[in-house]
Amino acid sequence: MAKLEAYSCFADIANRPALELADRLAALAPVDDAKVFFGSGGADAIDTAVKLARGYWQAHGEPERTHVISRETGYHGTHGYGTSITGIPPNREGWGVLAGENTVAPLHDLDGVEKVFAEVGPERVAAVVLEPVTGAGGVHLPSEGYLEGVAELCRLHGALLVVDSVICGFGRLGTWFGIERFGVRPDMITFAKGVTSGYLPLGGVVVAGRVAAPWWTTPGERTLRHGPTYSGHPTCCAVGLATLDIYEREGLIPRGEELETPLLEALAPLASHPLVHEVRAGFGLLAAVELEPEVLAAVPDAPNKLLAGARAAGVLVRGLGRGVAVSPPLIVEREHLDLLAEGIRAGLDAMPVESPVPSAPGA
Amino acid sequence: MAKLEAYSCFADIANRPALELADRLAALAPVDDAKVFFGSGGADAIDTAVKLARGYWQAHGEPERTHVISRETGYHGTHGYGTSITGIPPNREGWGVLAGENTVAPLHDLDGVEKVFAEVGPERVAAVVLEPVTGAGGVHLPSEGYLEGVAELCRLHGALLVVDSVICGFGRLGTWFGIERFGVRPDMITFAKGVTSGYLPLGGVVVAGRVAAPWWTTPGERTLRHGPTYSGHPTCCAVGLATLDIYEREGLIPRGEELETPLLEALAPLASHPLVHEVRAGFGLLAAVELEPEVLAAVPDAPNKLLAGARAAGVLVRGLGRGVAVSPPLIVEREHLDLLAEGIRAGLDAMPVESPVPSAPGA
Ligand SMILES: Cc1ncc(COP(=O)(O)O)c(C=O)c1O
Ligand SMILES: Cc1ncc(COP(=O)(O)O)c(C=O)c1O
Repeated sequence: MAKLEAYSCFADIANRPALELADRLAALAPVDDAKVFFGSGGADAIDTAVKLARGYWQAHGEPERTHVISRETGYHGTHGYGTSITGIPPNREGWGVLAGENTVAPLHDLDGVEKVFAEVGPERVAAVVLEPVTGAGGVHLPSEGYLEGVAELCRLHGALLVVDSVICGFGRLGTWFGIERFGVRPDMITFAKGVTSGYLPLGGVVVAGRVAAPWWTTPGERTLRHGPTYSGHPTCCAVGLATLDIYEREGLIPRGEELETPLLEALAPLASHPLVHEVRAGFGLLAAVELEPEVLAAVPDAPNKLLAGARAAGVLVRGLGRGVAVSPPLIVEREHLDLLAEGIRAGLDAMPVESPVPSAPGA
Repeated sequence: MAKLEAYSCFADIANRPALELADRLAALAPVDDAKVFFGSGGADAIDTAVKLARGYWQAHGEPERTHVISRETGYHGTHGYGTSITGIPPNREGWGVLAGENTVAPLHDLDGVEKVFAEVGPERVAAVVLEPVTGAGGVHLPSEGYLEGVAELCRLHGALLVVDSVICGFGRLGTWFGIERFGVRPDMITFAKGVTSGYLPLGGVVVAGRVAAPWWTTPGERTLRHGPTYSGHPTCCAVGLATLDIYEREGLIPRGEELETPLLEALAPLASHPLVHEVRAGFGLLAAVELEPEVLAAVPDAPNKLLAGARAAGVLVRGLGRGVAVSPPLIVEREHLDLLAEGIRAGLDAMPVESPVPSAPGA
């Protein structure tokens, strides 16, 4: 901050921390000939990725490729394009009009995705955008072969694959960008959160060289007419560099996978709590506890009541549509995971439910 | 950063620096019963304002009010909605589809704005979005009565007025939000840049109480389902607070007006340079030097060549479509303004123009 308070990355201008961080992320990402575009958070990254996907096809003589396919329960921030492609209906509602030309495909049903391609017309699909594990939409763990299948559909139909790793990146699934666990190499990866561990606002898109190519020109030839003032903010990028140093020095990235079974073991007993419909954990260091439909029907704003109860017991969780989620820091030990489970149990026990709610059949 | 590395403002959660900064900005802003929503930059603020404007009418039983009117040469960032409403055509082009339902109204022609209202149907207009002085689109100084007239049209037709003060705020025009010089009280004001003087990414929207009302409820009743992770980032808000302290302590805000005549005097002589079409300065501490049409036609990428020439002479300017712009810091003295003019003159003299270009008639 003392050396350079602010400097945008635009056209042929950049700054050292931004260049260094871009180089490191490009080297780490499972993306061919990777380039990096910076913004200040995940939603910036998504709006950039959607624009780049459509802009790529405009530049490549397939201007009819404007349609974006996203996924049920998918969350991609709340800027213009992220709001329109989310698979969480209440986040899309009440805004009058949205930024159109997109379809939400089913969560776990690969045939359903194929059907969306067929309905839209594969030659009209610019990109598919999805999270490795949907986070804000409920922490839905991967179903066997789905992500790999979507990647194959993209390859088959020529659509770009955009993987939103804003939650799943930087160790949450035990790898740098989360997607490595599926053996998939996307055309773009969006990232944020973990890149600075939250210390300062930063996010961005890793872009395959062929997708960046229309704008990867000599200065003056063709400028990417897109980008926020704080793209590549030097202080934020310096914080990103320091964060990567710590991840590497302390060996934190693999912990997201090492801790997935301990997290599952800590939370699994909650599944037999009478108010709990399901515990989703076991893949990466993130999990959800979903309430019984009867509880959701009987208690207004039930997830936030559970959140408040857990908070009163000293545990911060995130409210979801049908329950709560956790994404503990990568430095947690088993004892902290037990504390987490205890706090949620205390929140459940404090729920304002008149009489014990019977478990739904099969729950 | 040591006390609280990150904490979103969402639902009933906030943090002290964010609350304090919101209170201070609300007290300073020429907005009735002001509330503040934070993001990380100007484009976040614009996408938020457009969503809030449309969402307000959805909540108020006028769901057909979805249309947004913006202004020729207007720039509002590059997220989904900001890209669609810009009045700078090359920034809108090449992205395939945009986030629709908006019309760009003429820059200085109030009758033209009235005509747009009539064409769209006044009952369909959610909001008008415009800068007090358009910046990135060319630094077009206010024309007599235009802004006041637009505000009156909004009042007449019930549309919300969103003033984009991302450039004009925090002293650029000599007041906190720029718009005070027009005696207009908008329904929303977007801000960024100057709120931290660029030291960290921060931006937001000041929202009139009546516009925020649908979401300004007791927790659980109606949540604003919108907002980035870094909304109200505590470190960024702390930097905002420190920046406001400095503005107040050093009396910097009025300097944007005090220096407008010195800036005009420094740059005015450039108007007679054979390559220069026009110098626009004299209102606020910002200015543009526009090149002759013949130069723009003869020299490919002429504005960036002028920028490079000025940079070689030690002066950083911003490239525009037809010239360059300057927005000096509020601490400059007259001698620095002269240096600025010298640097631009050196850049002009270094332009790769074969023979002297004749001045266009009347230029
Ligand atoms: C998967 C995903 N994408 C995008 C975003 C948006 O990021 P931000 O909140 O930084 O705008 C989020 C935020 O939670 C996210 O979880
Ligand atoms: C008037 C105006 N609005 C919005 C923006 C977008 O702000 P940001 O670049 O921080 O996204 C800018 C940026 O220059 C601007 O000048």
